[in-house]
Amino acid sequence: MKPEKKGITLFGKINILDTTLRDGEQTPGVALSTDDKIKIAYALDDLGVGIIEAGSAVTSDGERAAIKAVSNIGLSAEICSYCRMKKEDIDLAIECDVDSVHLVVPSSALHIEMKLKKDISIAADREFVLAAAGETAEYAKSHGLIVEFSAEDASRADLKFLKDLYKTGVSHHADRLCFCDTVGMLTPERAFTVFSELASSVGAPLSIHCHNDFGLATANTVAALRAGASEAHVTVNGIGERSGNASLEEVVVQLEHLYGIRTGIQTENLYKVSRLVSRLTGIPVAPNKAIVGGNSFTHEAGIHVHDLVKNTASYEPISPEFVGRERKVVLGKHAGTSSIELALKELGFSAEKSQKEEIFSRVKELGDLGKHVTDADLQTIAEAVLEIHHNPTVRLKAFTAVSGRPSIPMASVVLDVSGTEQICVDTGDGPVDAAIRAIRKAVSSVGDIILEEYHVDAITGGTDALVEVMVKLSKDGKTVTARGARTDIIEASVEAVINGMNRLV
Amino acid sequence: MKPEKKGITLFGKINILDTTLRDGEQTPGVALSTDDKIKIAYALDDLGVGIIEAGSAVTSDGERAAIKAVSNIGLSAEICSYCRMKKEDIDLAIECDVDSVHLVVPSSALHIEMKLKKDISIAADREFVLAAAGETAEYAKSHGLIVEFSAEDASRADLKFLKDLYKTGVSHHADRLCFCDTVGMLTPERAFTVFSELASSVGAPLSIHCHNDFGLATANTVAALRAGASEAHVTVNGIGERSGNASLEEVVVQLEHLYGIRTGIQTENLYKVSRLVSRLTGIPVAPNKAIVGGNSFTHEAGIHVHDLVKNTASYEPISPEFVGRERKVVLGKHAGTSSIELALKELGFSAEKSQKEEIFSRVKELGDLGKHVTDADLQTIAEAVLEIHHNPTVRLKAFTAVSGRPSIPMASVVLDVSGTEQICVDTGDGPVDAAIRAIRKAVSSVGDIILEEYHVDAITGGTDALVEVMVKLSKDGKTVTARGARTDIIEASVEAVINGMNRLV
Repeated sequence: MKPEKKGITLFGKINILDTTLRDGEQTPGVALSTDDKIKIAYALDDLGVGIIEAGSAVTSDGERAAIKAVSNIGLSAEICSYCRMKKEDIDLAIECDVDSVHLVVPSSALHIEMKLKKDISIAADREFVLAAAGETAEYAKSHGLIVEFSAEDASRADLKFLKDLYKTGVSHHADRLCFCDTVGMLTPERAFTVFSELASSVGAPLSIHCHNDFGLATANTVAALRAGASEAHVTVNGIGERSGNASLEEVVVQLEHLYGIRTGIQTENLYKVSRLVSRLTGIPVAPNKAIVGGNSFTHEAGIHVHDLVKNTASYEPISPEFVGRERKVVLGKHAGTSSIELALKELGFSAEKSQKEEIFSRVKELGDLGKHVTDADLQTIAEAVLEIHHNPTVRLKAFTAVSGRPSIPMASVVLDVSGTEQICVDTGDGPVDAAIRAIRKAVSSVGDIILEEYHVDAITGGTDALVEVMVKLSKDGKTVTARGARTDIIEASVEAVINGMNRLV
Repeated sequence: MKPEKKGITLFGKINILDTTLRDGEQTPGVALSTDDKIKIAYALDDLGVGIIEAGSAVTSDGERAAIKAVSNIGLSAEICSYCRMKKEDIDLAIECDVDSVHLVVPSSALHIEMKLKKDISIAADREFVLAAAGETAEYAKSHGLIVEFSAEDASRADLKFLKDLYKTGVSHHADRLCFCDTVGMLTPERAFTVFSELASSVGAPLSIHCHNDFGLATANTVAALRAGASEAHVTVNGIGERSGNASLEEVVVQLEHLYGIRTGIQTENLYKVSRLVSRLTGIPVAPNKAIVGGNSFTHEAGIHVHDLVKNTASYEPISPEFVGRERKVVLGKHAGTSSIELALKELGFSAEKSQKEEIFSRVKELGDLGKHVTDADLQTIAEAVLEIHHNPTVRLKAFTAVSGRPSIPMASVVLDVSGTEQICVDTGDGPVDAAIRAIRKAVSSVGDIILEEYHVDAITGGTDALVEVMVKLSKDGKTVTARGARTDIIEASVEAVINGMNRLV
C-alpha cells in the first residue's frame, strides 16, 4: 500500500472522479491495453482529475496488470478500483495497489433480488443486505483503503432503505457515499430534491454517478452537485455502457461557465484528452457533441459568420481556446458573403465586388447540389472566376495499389513534384493507407505533410457508387481540407490528398 | 396558399416542431438536395411531428425549390420557413407555399446591436425594434401565414424587454411565441423559472428552441415544457450548428417515459428516422448517443448481461422495441459466462461446463489484447474448443486486387468451393467491385448469388481505421446479411461477401 492521499472530499469543494478506464472501457467493443490505460491515466492526472477509477480488478489478469501499473506510476490522483460487495474483489483490488475502492452495493429491490436473491420487503433480508454491505466496507477499511460506498440503481431504490444503507456505510467508516443512477432515469429536478434530502441526513460526502440513457447524464450530475453532492463521476467524451456516462468536459464546462465554480480542471487540455480517448478506444465523437465535437466551434451559416467576425460572443458562448481548440469557418450553401470573403482572404485571393458575387453564386450552386464545399473547391472556383492559371506543384502521373491475402497492402506512386519525377512505394494497413504513405514520401522534398483527418461518407447502394473522400492535411501548423470523388475509393483518396497538398505547398 | 392547418398549439398539449431541415441542415458541411428534404419530410410526417421547419427561404434558389416541394406533397404537418425580420424574407416564404413562418427577431442587446445597429438602452431604439418586429409579424399575418414570433438569443435578453417584445408580437396577432436559447446558455432550473414567469404573463402559446453548446439542450427543453411551454423545437439526432439542437428522440422519450406525457409521436419509428437523417446528412451518430446510438441497447459487461438475461428491466430503462430497435449482446473482455452462454446458444452450439470455461477464458485473452470479440471470433473459438470440424462451402485461399491510374481496377481470387479450387479474375469500377465480381464468377457452380446491397459505415479518423462493410446477398429468393471488418476496405468487402455466401449455399 502507498501512503494516504488527498482523495477524501470536503463538503463544498467539487471533486472529479473520472471512470473512463472502468465505465468508459465497458463500452461494448472497447478494450484498452495496459499501455493505453497508462497514457490515459497520465492525461487525466495532468488535467487535474482528483480520482481515477482505473478498472475493475476482478475482470481479468490483464485488467489487474493495468490497474497495478496505473497505481504505481506516481500520479497525484487517487487511484481506485471498482469492487462488488465481495471480499474477493477487495482482495484483488489490494493486489493492484490502489488507494481506494468504489464498492458497489445493489440498492433497489430489483437489483437486490437479482444479485443477492433477497427480498427487501422482508425484515431479515433487509438486515442481511445491510450487514453484508457494512461488513465489506469494514473489510476494505481495515486494509487501509479509502472506501467510496456506492448504491447501485439508487434512483429506483426505496429512499428509506437507501438512507439506511448509507447510514450503514457511514457507521462502518465509509469515506464517501455514491448514488448511482444506473439506468439513467433521474431528472434534474428529482436529482436536486433527492440530493437535498440526502445531503442533510446521511453524514458523509456524497457522489453522483449518472448514466445517459435519456440524454440527461450531465444535467442530472450538475443538479446533484447544486444540491450538495461534492463529487461527480464522469468519463471523457461521455463514453460507457449503452448510452454512456456523464461527460467530463460537459460537467466541467457547465460548472465553470454557467455556475462560476472552479473545478481545478485544466480546461485548456480538455480537447486533447478527448482526442486521445477517442483514438485509443476507437469510439468516435459525434460532430455535434458539446465542447469536444468536430463542429462545436465551426461556423457555416452566413448570417452567423457575419456577426461572428464582428463579435465572437454573438454565437459562441465560450471561447474555443478555453478548452484548447480553435474556431473554424467553413463554406456551404448557407455561406454568406462575409464568410466567403473571410475564406478568400485566408486563401490569399483579392477579388472585386462583381467577382465576389460570381464566386458567391457558384459556391451556392455547389451547395444546392448537396455537396460539401471544401477549401479546394473554393480555390478552384476562385481561380476560374479570377482567371488565375495555376500550375500545381504536385501532379499525379500514375499510381498502383495492390491488396490481397495472403500479402501486405502496398502502393506505388509516380508524381511530378515541382517538375521532378518522384517514384515512391510503401506498405500500409490497407491500399489507401499504403497509397497515402507513398505520396507523403514522394513529396517530402517540399515539406512534411500530415494527414490530420480522413473521412469517407457512408457508401450505400452498390460497389459502383461514387465514393466521396474528405481529407484534412496540415503542414507547419497550416491546415486545409480537400475532397476527391471517384467510384474507386483508392483513387478518390489519392485525388483528395493531392488536391490538398497543392494548397499547402 | 393552402387551407389553414391544425398547426396552432393549444396550451397544455405538447407540439413538436422539427427543424432538421433548417437548423439541422445548417450543420457545417451538410447540404440536402430537394429529394433528400422530401424523403425526410415524409418520414417526419409519418412520425407524427406537428410542424416541419423546411428551410430558410432566403438562402438560395435551390433552398426555395426544396421548401416549395415539401409544402406541396400533401403532408399533415404544418410546413414552416425561417424568416428574418424582413419583408423580403416573408415574401420569399410565401412563394414557397408554406403554412407558417418562424419569424426570428433579435432580442438581446448584443444581437440587436449587431444586426440592427440599435442600442436598447435608448428608448427610441427600443421602440424602433418593437415597431419593426410588430410590423413584420403583421405583414406575415396579413398574407394568411401562421406566425411563430421568435426571440433570438432570448436567454441573454433583458426579461423586461423580452416581455415587451412578446406583447408586441401578441398585439400584432402572432400565433405562437418562441424563446431561442441561441448559444445554449440556459440551465434547466433557469428555463423553468423563466418559462413559469413568461407563461403567466405573455398571453400566447410558448415554444422553446434550445442549442446544445453545454450539452443541456434536451434538459432545458423539457424544463421549459414543464413550466408551461407547449411546443418544442428539435432536430433528429440533435444535429445543427456547432453542438447542435435539442434532439427529437431524447425529448420525446423523456416526455413519454420519465414524465408520462403522450407526445403523439410514433416512437417505434424513431430509430428508422434517425438512420435516414444520418445517411442523408452524412452526420454520424455517436455510439453512446442516447436512444439512437449504436450502443444504446447493446450489452457487453458480463455482470449486467447475466442480470439482463433474467430481467430486461435491470439494465434497460426502456425496451428497445419502443423506439424500433433490437437488443444486442456482444462479447469482449468484460463478458461474463452468461453472455457467452447466450451467444453460444444463438450460434447453435451446446457445450459442457468445462468447455464453456475454456471458451470463456479464451474470449478474455482476446479481450485483454485490446481486440473486439466478434461473433465470428466466438464461433472460431467455440469450434476449436468443441473440436468441431466445420467445413464452409466457400473458403478464401487468396485474393489480389489492383487499382491504379492509368489502368483498370482488377482482382483475382482463389477460392475453395465445395473442395474444388476455383481461380477467377475480373475488372470493375474499383478494386472492391472487381473483387466481388471475381468471387461471384468463382462460386457460380453452386448458384447465382446476387449482391443486393453494399454498405460501408462512414469512415472517420485515419486511414488505419477499421472499416466495417455490410452486404446483403440473395440466392433464389433467400436473403442474408453479413459483415466484414478490416483496416483494408477490400479485404473487409471480400470477407463480408464470403461470410454471406456460406450462409446462403
